Amino acid sequence: MFCVTCDASKELEDLVAKARPYSQHGKLASYIPALEKANKDDLSVAIYHLDDGTCTYAGDYQEKFTLQSISKVLSLAYVLAHIGEGKVFQKVGMEPTGDPFNSIAKLETSKPSKPLNPMINAGALVVTSLIPGQNTSDKWEKFLQFVQTLSGNTEIGYCKEVQESEFETSNLNRALCYFMRQHGVLEGDVESIMELYTKQCSIEMNCLDLARIGAVFSNNGRDPLSKKELIPEQIARICKTFMVTCGMYNASGEFAMKVGIPAKSGVSGGILGVIPNRCGIGVFSPALDEKGNSLAGWTLLELMNKKYDFSIF
Amino acid sequence: MFCVTCDASKELEDLVAKARPYSQHGKLASYIPALEKANKDDLSVAIYHLDDGTCTYAGDYQEKFTLQSISKVLSLAYVLAHIGEGKVFQKVGMEPTGDPFNSIAKLETSKPSKPLNPMINAGALVVTSLIPGQNTSDKWEKFLQFVQTLSGNTEIGYCKEVQESEFETSNLNRALCYFMRQHGVLEGDVESIMELYTKQCSIEMNCLDLARIGAVFSNNGRDPLSKKELIPEQIARICKTFMVTCGMYNASGEFAMKVGIPAKSGVSGGILGVIPNRCGIGVFSPALDEKGNSLAGWTLLELMNKKYDFSIF
Amino acid sequence: MFCVTCDASKELEDLVAKARPYSQHGKLASYIPALEKANKDDLSVAIYHLDDGTCTYAGDYQEKFTLQSISKVLSLAYVLAHIGEGKVFQKVGMEPTGDPFNSIAKLETSKPSKPLNPMINAGALVVTSLIPGQNTSDKWEKFLQFVQTLSGNTEIGYCKEVQESEFETSNLNRALCYFMRQHGVLEGDVESIMELYTKQCSIEMNCLDLARIGAVFSNNGRDPLSKKELIPEQIARICKTFMVTCGMYNASGEFAMKVGIPAKSGVSGGILGVIPNRCGIGVFSPALDEKGNSLAGWTLLELMNKKYDFSIF
Amino acid sequence: MFCVTCDASKELEDLVAKARPYSQHGKLASYIPALEKANKDDLSVAIYHLDDGTCTYAGDYQEKFTLQSISKVLSLAYVLAHIGEGKVFQKVGMEPTGDPFNSIAKLETSKPSKPLNPMINAGALVVTSLIPGQNTSDKWEKFLQFVQTLSGNTEIGYCKEVQESEFETSNLNRALCYFMRQHGVLEGDVESIMELYTKQCSIEMNCLDLARIGAVFSNNGRDPLSKKELIPEQIARICKTFMVTCGMYNASGEFAMKVGIPAKSGVSGGILGVIPNRCGIGVFSPALDEKGNSLAGWTLLELMNKKYDFSIF
Repeated sequence: MFCVTCDASKELEDLVAKARPYSQHGKLASYIPALEKANKDDLSVAIYHLDDGTCTYAGDYQEKFTLQSISKVLSLAYVLAHIGEGKVFQKVGMEPTGDPFNSIAKLETSKPSKPLNPMINAGALVVTSLIPGQNTSDKWEKFLQFVQTLSGNTEIGYCKEVQESEFETSNLNRALCYFMRQHGVLEGDVESIMELYTKQCSIEMNCLDLARIGAVFSNNGRDPLSKKELIPEQIARICKTFMVTCGMYNASGEFAMKVGIPAKSGVSGGILGVIPNRCGIGVFSPALDEKGNSLAGWTLLELMNKKYDFSIF
Repeated sequence: MFCVTCDASKELEDLVAKARPYSQHGKLASYIPALEKANKDDLSVAIYHLDDGTCTYAGDYQEKFTLQSISKVLSLAYVLAHIGEGKVFQKVGMEPTGDPFNSIAKLETSKPSKPLNPMINAGALVVTSLIPGQNTSDKWEKFLQFVQTLSGNTEIGYCKEVQESEFETSNLNRALCYFMRQHGVLEGDVESIMELYTKQCSIEMNCLDLARIGAVFSNNGRDPLSKKELIPEQIARICKTFMVTCGMYNASGEFAMKVGIPAKSGVSGGILGVIPNRCGIGVFSPALDEKGNSLAGWTLLELMNKKYDFSIF
Repeated sequence: MFCVTCDASKELEDLVAKARPYSQHGKLASYIPALEKANKDDLSVAIYHLDDGTCTYAGDYQEKFTLQSISKVLSLAYVLAHIGEGKVFQKVGMEPTGDPFNSIAKLETSKPSKPLNPMINAGALVVTSLIPGQNTSDKWEKFLQFVQTLSGNTEIGYCKEVQESEFETSNLNRALCYFMRQHGVLEGDVESIMELYTKQCSIEMNCLDLARIGAVFSNNGRDPLSKKELIPEQIARICKTFMVTCGMYNASGEFAMKVGIPAKSGVSGGILGVIPNRCGIGVFSPALDEKGNSLAGWTLLELMNKKYDFSIF
Repeated sequence: MFCVTCDASKELEDLVAKARPYSQHGKLASYIPALEKANKDDLSVAIYHLDDGTCTYAGDYQEKFTLQSISKVLSLAYVLAHIGEGKVFQKVGMEPTGDPFNSIAKLETSKPSKPLNPMINAGALVVTSLIPGQNTSDKWEKFLQFVQTLSGNTEIGYCKEVQESEFETSNLNRALCYFMRQHGVLEGDVESIMELYTKQCSIEMNCLDLARIGAVFSNNGRDPLSKKELIPEQIARICKTFMVTCGMYNASGEFAMKVGIPAKSGVSGGILGVIPNRCGIGVFSPALDEKGNSLAGWTLLELMNKKYDFSIF
């Protein structure tokens, strides 16, 4: 069962109506060709409430989108759970950075060469390289299953068109991988890592599914309905911390100031939000601001925070 | 009145005893000659409880120390309250950085040249340059009064020896000031700014005073006893956010993970901690780790978090 | 005696006529207010021939200009002669850099912090700090005398208006000085160094004087008429080498390719050229290209190289 | 015919004896496993004299070594001759850099992203990507033929063991390629470029062959015996200019100062030297200094310069 009931919310619709016009000032992600096909106007939101297991939504809530960088939180949770904090943080740091998410310069200037955190591309690639499994397809299947469990939706898969588009154009991520392989930070075959990474980025869902994932983190790693532990509490906490300090690219500080919740965005325009012990949020609107965050999505979360006082600060 | 009662705590003493040995692995700040005279063994802690206005303490709680970078939070709160968010964030950013607190390189490579946040030296110098007043001594007196009010202690002043030592050796801060003046980020006479900045860094107090300041932030800007607003709530929130994302130099991410509270450290070995709606904390131990944070102080806060579950995540 | 005869050259006039229109595409240096008053159209050139001690010239040859960065070669020669290679190269490197002449980032990222070469501002400031003398005015008088001797013109002085303008606006150079003082690369009072440095940059002469200085370097350090050693041969060689590898800001490589002679330019629009064992060249045209080199001046030297085959490669 | 006569030189042997001990302070290149098998003591030198077409040599002159970075000059000459200056310098700059030869940071911070010059790895990879031909083996055969012609030795081939070792371990070069492909600076299949690049780096010869190549550049691109043009004069000049400004990694400035000739070194320990209109030089000694230049080889060239006055400055 996904949730107890799932209803449209008049209140949320009002906020969506206020936020939607902002999408006009944003731009669709252009560096992954398949993402440019999105409908710039789309805006959707869902809230999964922990207290009663219900879900409220508004806007184009059935619209699917790929996770992109949002998947970095999920792979991190998965890898931490399977190989342990010690091994992961030997390879990737815990510190926010003022550099863009795809920057390579710090890898050269830092000694030792180690990605600053798992929310930037370099760090996320290391995390993906640590996903356990016998081979790429084994790794992929088990990780996808994990994501399906979190979302309570076994239908979830990945968008082949986006994945292939990303795989073909991922020169920068290949550069990061080879650079880190040179420095012994990343091991394994780069093309296999790229396959796995582009698949995880291309996992497709709607805002309801995403809100449900947020609810798991909100519930300290436990399934909001069955209360079963899906992610150890300490790992859920680590993930939420990274979401606060580095979840919104290099506008994370501003987002913490203006909205103040653990969140992770992707260049598809999705945003995963977590209100600790209260609810999970999924937002989608594909037009991005200059730093890669959904413009109308961010605006909507600001409006929601003003109305519902979400901030943890 | 400073607090309702002020008592030694057996429980805290036990934690202090556990944390104290860590100070042996740290080093006294060497770049400010006067700070090298500190007693490496010192460790003190105080907690100011919001619920009953009482204070508990342990260790060398009467030992005074200078605020150093902790003062960055106080000058930020003061300047935000007096000239407004708009003017401040035009000159200084909101984003955490992976660079050291005294780095100048980002000022050159970022366009426009603007300090990433007010917790690194460049940003803090800009904030100090914005302190309003007719002249340096007028600015200083009013700011000191603000700090005295927050701490509930009108005896608080600055350590002249440390201030003079810092003023003489602040070549790097002068470099940052001139560089920012070149780019129109910082205005005014550099030597006057240096006087004001080194004075604010040299403000001297003990852990009880510092815990009391933490209690104001914990109490959303209100005096914990009189409930009077000393800092507007929204500004207190901004400060707490910066303390989470950038308060512990470039170990802020790790601290968020391991302790999870708004905190700000200084190279004197002091740490200001804030547990929202619960208590304020002052810690002092002068031996530092490689990143400039008090080693025993950090350890003590980890132990306290394990015992009292402080983390906001 | 300055030279044997000094005559206008029809051939040079033709080249000047061809190069002059290029000045229209350049810009006057704007960062030193006094330099913006120059006449954008000006173009002048003089050649001091070693074989017969004669001088030929063309264009606005009586127009005076300040040396700016050209003075870096002269202070280097002076300091090398007075305190020796060993002490100088302990403080400043020998390597070209791809960074702009006023960059500070490399000083932070290089270990040890040491300017890459004496032709960028950081390195030139270190060289100026090493000028020997009892006090600033003593240092200045002796250095000016050295420049007068090289140019064979005891009338040469500095432009007070430009010097004051530079002194007031040299925030970036002050930043470089304080940064290097922090790292022990530069010693002494920054304001005194700034006075001396802005004076050396403001030394004023015309293209005939500059060509005469070039002739000394061309003649391996010897006065072209009296044959007296003004600069030790080995030091003249060092200077010419720096002029080839770093003389034309970060277009030095391109200039070596297209003209191929030791040369040093300044943001006033002057260029000092040296054709080894043949002649010295002085060029002036104040409109600059994006990298800070005189646009018509560079063009003129390219044309001269095509006609007279100057390149050392 | 390779040369008129080829004789051992007593004078050179004396210099070799003086320089050889320096090899003890160097280290064999470790990042390409196959290079670590070299004999640390080896030192050889050959001079190809333009005036009489004779060759003098000393030391272990029959010892073969791979060209490594020396090949960058040859591929540059080849590509410039085949596709023209315009197309080449659209993709790669002309400026020296203070960064290490394998640095990637400047590619990220420079706008547009373009390697600073063809002597650093990034630039050389771009040059190799521009080698014309129907496929990799066609490109390779024609380029090898060009090198054979320059050296007057049709026996010259490449060392398969070194090539394979480099191909396997070239993570950093792959990172550079993918990064530049992302920015449209480099086109084509990265693995094919890596094959071609590692083959050109693995071309194997002795110091006599290398001196003969130097003689071609010394003779302005013409075969020293037949006087046939092998490289257009203007292109030979461009190559010599790059050798002066960037030929000796980031010790090029120091080498220009201390030896003062166009030269290019490789991490195998080879150095190609060019004395314009006089002679070509080949030197080999595998123990390197910290910047990647042959230690005894550099020393030998300094001694030769003192004796024969080679410097062009």
